[in-house]
Amino acid sequence: MTAPPFALPVLRLKPKADARRIRHGHPWAWADDLVLDRRSRAVPAGALAVLEDAERQPLGLGVATVEAKIGLRLLDRDPGAVIDGAWLTARIGAAQALRDRLYDAPFYRLVHAEGDGLPGLIVDRFGDTLVMQPNAIWLEEREAALAEALLSVTGCTTLIKNGTARARLAEGLPEVTAVLAGTAPEAPIPVPMTGATYMADVMGGQKTGLFYDQRDTHAFAARLARGARVLDVFSHVGGFALACLAAGAEAAVAVDASEPALALAGQGAAASGLGDRLTTRRGDAFAEMEALAAEGARFDLVVCDPPAFAPSKQALEAGLRAYERVARLAAPLVAEGGVLMLCSCSHAADLAKFRAACLRGIGRAGRDPRLIHTGFAGPDHPQHPQLTETGYLKALAFRLMP
Amino acid sequence: MTAPPFALPVLRLKPKADARRIRHGHPWAWADDLVLDRRSRAVPAGALAVLEDAERQPLGLGVATVEAKIGLRLLDRDPGAVIDGAWLTARIGAAQALRDRLYDAPFYRLVHAEGDGLPGLIVDRFGDTLVMQPNAIWLEEREAALAEALLSVTGCTTLIKNGTARARLAEGLPEVTAVLAGTAPEAPIPVPMTGATYMADVMGGQKTGLFYDQRDTHAFAARLARGARVLDVFSHVGGFALACLAAGAEAAVAVDASEPALALAGQGAAASGLGDRLTTRRGDAFAEMEALAAEGARFDLVVCDPPAFAPSKQALEAGLRAYERVARLAAPLVAEGGVLMLCSCSHAADLAKFRAACLRGIGRAGRDPRLIHTGFAGPDHPQHPQLTETGYLKALAFRLMP
Repeated sequence: MTAPPFALPVLRLKPKADARRIRHGHPWAWADDLVLDRRSRAVPAGALAVLEDAERQPLGLGVATVEAKIGLRLLDRDPGAVIDGAWLTARIGAAQALRDRLYDAPFYRLVHAEGDGLPGLIVDRFGDTLVMQPNAIWLEEREAALAEALLSVTGCTTLIKNGTARARLAEGLPEVTAVLAGTAPEAPIPVPMTGATYMADVMGGQKTGLFYDQRDTHAFAARLARGARVLDVFSHVGGFALACLAAGAEAAVAVDASEPALALAGQGAAASGLGDRLTTRRGDAFAEMEALAAEGARFDLVVCDPPAFAPSKQALEAGLRAYERVARLAAPLVAEGGVLMLCSCSHAADLAKFRAACLRGIGRAGRDPRLIHTGFAGPDHPQHPQLTETGYLKALAFRLMP
Repeated sequence: MTAPPFALPVLRLKPKADARRIRHGHPWAWADDLVLDRRSRAVPAGALAVLEDAERQPLGLGVATVEAKIGLRLLDRDPGAVIDGAWLTARIGAAQALRDRLYDAPFYRLVHAEGDGLPGLIVDRFGDTLVMQPNAIWLEEREAALAEALLSVTGCTTLIKNGTARARLAEGLPEVTAVLAGTAPEAPIPVPMTGATYMADVMGGQKTGLFYDQRDTHAFAARLARGARVLDVFSHVGGFALACLAAGAEAAVAVDASEPALALAGQGAAASGLGDRLTTRRGDAFAEMEALAAEGARFDLVVCDPPAFAPSKQALEAGLRAYERVARLAAPLVAEGGVLMLCSCSHAADLAKFRAACLRGIGRAGRDPRLIHTGFAGPDHPQHPQLTETGYLKALAFRLMP
């Protein structure tokens, strides 16, 4: 145990609180479980604190936010750990080691928050460029050390800070985008993935510019793609369309409401040598699906990967109805014996509820489905097993029987 | 609607029964929901019957087993369908079409029972050889038509009937193994899969000789294998070990209680040109894991794919304890930052229960896990969505944090 460089405040669990839960791996202490007196209430949000059980046995070192629902997030089981550049380098190095094992090329989510032992931190890697989202005060306060650790572990030359996430604003941090090292790329970065080249707009795009979390599901879709006609609804920059075209799809149609996203899809197709087989349709996905049905269009593979319709518990019922509607409008576009892939990135809609909504929609379209695949976010999105069931992202592939 | 060739018995739902459930896609009628009078009780097990709702509206044509819990399994929503060679050919053809889309080489599960609209029928394909398990009376009575349909759709030359499944005995069918077409292979059949060559003993092995259902999970393990030391516990014919060696693992140890299975693993490794990197250890998996721990052995990837410890609800608690024990004994064998993959093929242990058992075992071993993958049976094992949650087969990959 290392001696701390200065005395840290202590937060103590109430006698009735379940210390075993934390001792057995849970990384959070609920504020309701903490003894909150004048002293502990004075611990500022984002400050380091030692967590003790009711018998004053230390449980670890964490980040306090005693006024929030989660009163403390553990950083280290060693209460004497020093959260400095060396500590950050060790955590980032461990994250890098997993990705080195998984991927041939440096394009992946490098740090996935609690899943990599770094609560609040998201880092995506695009070759020599890193895009980080530091969504917590403790990270903001260590920005220089964090930047140095990221650059030294990865050998990257450019580090962009994307400080626009809602989680960040909830911590009271300002919205900011900044180049912390190197120079901002002037053009989208080409990302080789699943056989195609994608275009990531790391400065102006959604989140960090590209969604790595669906890569394995793209790969599953690509297995069905040879000679197929593919429809990619809510396509963003063409995640499914390009992977399928690269795997030999005859043609793909990408539908999205965003003209910039479709432009990136087109650039990606061109960079992949697939431009002549991609068609884009800008518009509301629901309206476009109805229009395609009216045109009598049929596809061997239809993929719908909408934005989070049920981002919160309050939005769950409406969200599930939206997922059902997506399924109902998409199913008629699937050729006999073809496959319908439906995705959800809603935390609030668990796998069983999402699947039930999909089945209602497919049933209302009069089709007879078989489930051939259930997928989640890829392995560069590790999950703390105590924090989630199967994660926010779900993908279901249904074969619609001939 | 085709006129039936002869009048079929009718089974009718009770007024209180939920006909909507069946109309909306469920393929079974519970015997408790059927009007059971002298006439309907006389319908012999395995006979075709028309299912009607309480208002005498037909719901489809199915196979009756009125004395069992499931009173009728629907074969066709068309009550006038004729279940003959042409019908079987159409169903098998639809199954073949999905596999043609998914696989480059003819090695896969060709028919997965209800998932392919053929209740009770399992067919695995090994190149020009088919191994079928007809586990229901209606299939047994149509054996000649079924054999002809299978051979004509696939172009295969050899058809082996494996009539040893417990499900078959439950239907009152005799245990039998027979060669229905071609000649019984005298040696194991080499099966190219996930970069390696496996040896399938289609006459004397377990089930149909090889487990195709783990192929996608083998592929996930292989992604972690480059340069890795791999331990494959409950290895059978070396499913994980060979896939990992083919993907560049430094060495693999396969542990199994069956000498014939390990011999096939060795033959597969030799046929794959990987024989010098595979070690086999015959013995009880639990004892072997304890012995490896005592030897101080550490692996970058440990996979445990045991037989079904919880095959029934009665066996659930003991089964979950066994899964916990597997996790507890396997976790200490994983190097820092390495990966532990734990599998279950138990129907009764659902995903949440299985995951919880694994986490208890890992926690008791003092390791800190992150979930990086959740997988299920591959897409050649389609599931009727009304019949199951996520299926019998689950695979979880945990990274054990450094």
